[in-house]
Amino acid sequence: MQTIEKKKIMVVEGGGVTTPKGFKAGGLHCGIKRKRLDLGFISSVVPATAAGVYTTNLFQAAPLMVTQESIDKEHKIQALLVNSGNANSCTGEQGLQDAYDMQRLFAEKMGVPNHYVAVTSTGVIGVPLPMDKMKAGIEKSLEKENEGVIRFEQAILTTDTGVKNVCVQLEIDGEVVTIGGAAKGSGMIHPNMATMLGFITTDAQIDHTTLTEVLKEVTNQTFNMITVDGDTSTNDMVLVMANGEAKNKPITNNHPQWSLFVEAFQMVSESLAKQIARDGEGATKLIEVQVEGAIDDEAARGISKSIISSNLVKTAIYGTDPNWGRIVCAIGYSGEKLNPTHVTVKLGPITVVEKGLPFAFDEEEAKTYLQQENIHIFVDLHQGEGKATAWGCDLTYDYVKINASYRT
Amino acid sequence: MQTIEKKKIMVVEGGGVTTPKGFKAGGLHCGIKRKRLDLGFISSVVPATAAGVYTTNLFQAAPLMVTQESIDKEHKIQALLVNSGNANSCTGEQGLQDAYDMQRLFAEKMGVPNHYVAVTSTGVIGVPLPMDKMKAGIEKSLEKENEGVIRFEQAILTTDTGVKNVCVQLEIDGEVVTIGGAAKGSGMIHPNMATMLGFITTDAQIDHTTLTEVLKEVTNQTFNMITVDGDTSTNDMVLVMANGEAKNKPITNNHPQWSLFVEAFQMVSESLAKQIARDGEGATKLIEVQVEGAIDDEAARGISKSIISSNLVKTAIYGTDPNWGRIVCAIGYSGEKLNPTHVTVKLGPITVVEKGLPFAFDEEEAKTYLQQENIHIFVDLHQGEGKATAWGCDLTYDYVKINASYRT
Repeated sequence: MQTIEKKKIMVVEGGGVTTPKGFKAGGLHCGIKRKRLDLGFISSVVPATAAGVYTTNLFQAAPLMVTQESIDKEHKIQALLVNSGNANSCTGEQGLQDAYDMQRLFAEKMGVPNHYVAVTSTGVIGVPLPMDKMKAGIEKSLEKENEGVIRFEQAILTTDTGVKNVCVQLEIDGEVVTIGGAAKGSGMIHPNMATMLGFITTDAQIDHTTLTEVLKEVTNQTFNMITVDGDTSTNDMVLVMANGEAKNKPITNNHPQWSLFVEAFQMVSESLAKQIARDGEGATKLIEVQVEGAIDDEAARGISKSIISSNLVKTAIYGTDPNWGRIVCAIGYSGEKLNPTHVTVKLGPITVVEKGLPFAFDEEEAKTYLQQENIHIFVDLHQGEGKATAWGCDLTYDYVKINASYRT
Repeated sequence: MQTIEKKKIMVVEGGGVTTPKGFKAGGLHCGIKRKRLDLGFISSVVPATAAGVYTTNLFQAAPLMVTQESIDKEHKIQALLVNSGNANSCTGEQGLQDAYDMQRLFAEKMGVPNHYVAVTSTGVIGVPLPMDKMKAGIEKSLEKENEGVIRFEQAILTTDTGVKNVCVQLEIDGEVVTIGGAAKGSGMIHPNMATMLGFITTDAQIDHTTLTEVLKEVTNQTFNMITVDGDTSTNDMVLVMANGEAKNKPITNNHPQWSLFVEAFQMVSESLAKQIARDGEGATKLIEVQVEGAIDDEAARGISKSIISSNLVKTAIYGTDPNWGRIVCAIGYSGEKLNPTHVTVKLGPITVVEKGLPFAFDEEEAKTYLQQENIHIFVDLHQGEGKATAWGCDLTYDYVKINASYRT
């Protein structure tokens, strides 16, 4: 008789990047920003297997080049260092040198090889990093490693209104494996200029190739579903460190608990992605667009992104206006194959379009639904098995306010 | 001895779709909108050669199907009828029947075959056309044909703040040829849902194939440069009527004045496109993005559209913030091939980026420049001969206001 094994992934309330065994993190104020924390780090007791996904923007910031090159060497890092307030982007040769210096200074402080330190920056672009401040900050950084992970979570923020973290635990080979995460917001509706940064730590034992595979697959369904195709900043990056301290047998895609691990990893990424979307600049609502019945997943992704990227859909939801016509329109110009006469659209539980035509609904009920903070748009194309979910936020007066005067 | 022929295209101040010989137009209130004019028509004394470009949105509105089918029959129309306030889109079989009825009723009134009447609608989608009001309106429509072209220009508007018209004259074969135009705004920043309608009349003699060729080529460089790829409404359309009343020799691409005619046609289209962009919902500024030095025209179009579509660029310009980083970012994620280290960016006369790096400029001077109503962004990629220009507007509080409560 087989025992039915229950899937077990536990959310650790209040957990984050230092909940997995063997990780420390800290944050401090080095003076790039006026008052708020602006320099943060995560370190591991041992070198950790590393994987990253990087912006596809042709203007790639200097720290990303340095980090990518460093990880490519040995596929391991032992620490990562982030500054906020200055993106070290469009800074030319000097910027590259500064990124290397930033890396070297922290590596020396840590007593590890330079290429064991990943570096990243977020903030204003085109302004050289103030290296004197960075140097002084790095000098005293490690003193801060016992003052709470929240200081790291705060130090990486720019226009975000709050910290973003998540932590889950699961059992693998009888060992407790923990995955923690922190992120800073894309901070805007199309996250093109503000940087999205995600940092995931785990004490799982897993090799570089497998870790990269998981990261890419999961990123496509989470972090990339809050961005419009190619609509990426010069500094976007998601980094994972896996230090193996849980002592499980190495996870591969043949491991019996492989899919459980992937699911847990997905939960962490999805949670961070949704926290980022919800905290879009000026946002008052999180919008989730779920598309089913597309000819394939790729088409479903295209359609869900087309809807979530529509300024008109976003403003309608801000105004609690059940304007299904704008949703239908965004489906129609998505460029994906579909039959308009098969389309169903729901706002939460309320069907508003059936077979491509308006479906009678109670306007007041729909307006009441749209007053909630979490809005769910469901689209069924009745064409195939393809599905995808995308997340975004509403477009508000505050978005305009924040972005009409961000730099000055 | 050859005489150097001077190119001569004259702008006719105050001219419009009835300035070319043999055209009449009118507008009235039939009751779809509360007070404003909502039914307009243009007619020609003789059947006119017709050409159209139609939305690529998969949800195509009923009147577009009827119009396209009708023009395809004989490539001629003698009149067009437009109502505003109701788009007759997502209205199923009933909508199609209503569009045919609208066409038939006006054709009977005019005494022409049904397929000599083009019909189009703009406004709210998913609501059946109030055919009783339409019928009564059509009944008395022709009485209004001597009350001024402005009534037609007004009758086609929705959220536009003003009428859009243009007229030019040139000499062909010693005859004065006139081209006039009217348009209604896309009314929004990405013109996806609000409809863009353009109507061009000319008394030039020109065959259908040539007219279609000119329209398509010019539309690609004008009307399509104020839209994001595929970002089209269910009702977008540009229609041209050429009634031959100028009695020139038929224009073909072998005609000695072919390029002069194309240039005049381009002037008309570009003027209407810019008027639409400038009147984007809530807009305070017209933004022109001129890209040169791309590997080809296609790449230049992609890059200029990427910039003009960026919410961040649009809000920065609204806030008179010379935030060149957002422009550089939009270039970088355009998906087009380019070398970041070759890029020059200018705001009006002020160079802000050179060789992909920030170029020292006077912040106050740039802010002063951005306070103007017409903003010019110039990008040189130094990669080839490709060039394109795109137009748009800034993103303002009023955009959010208008679109958060358009339908209700």
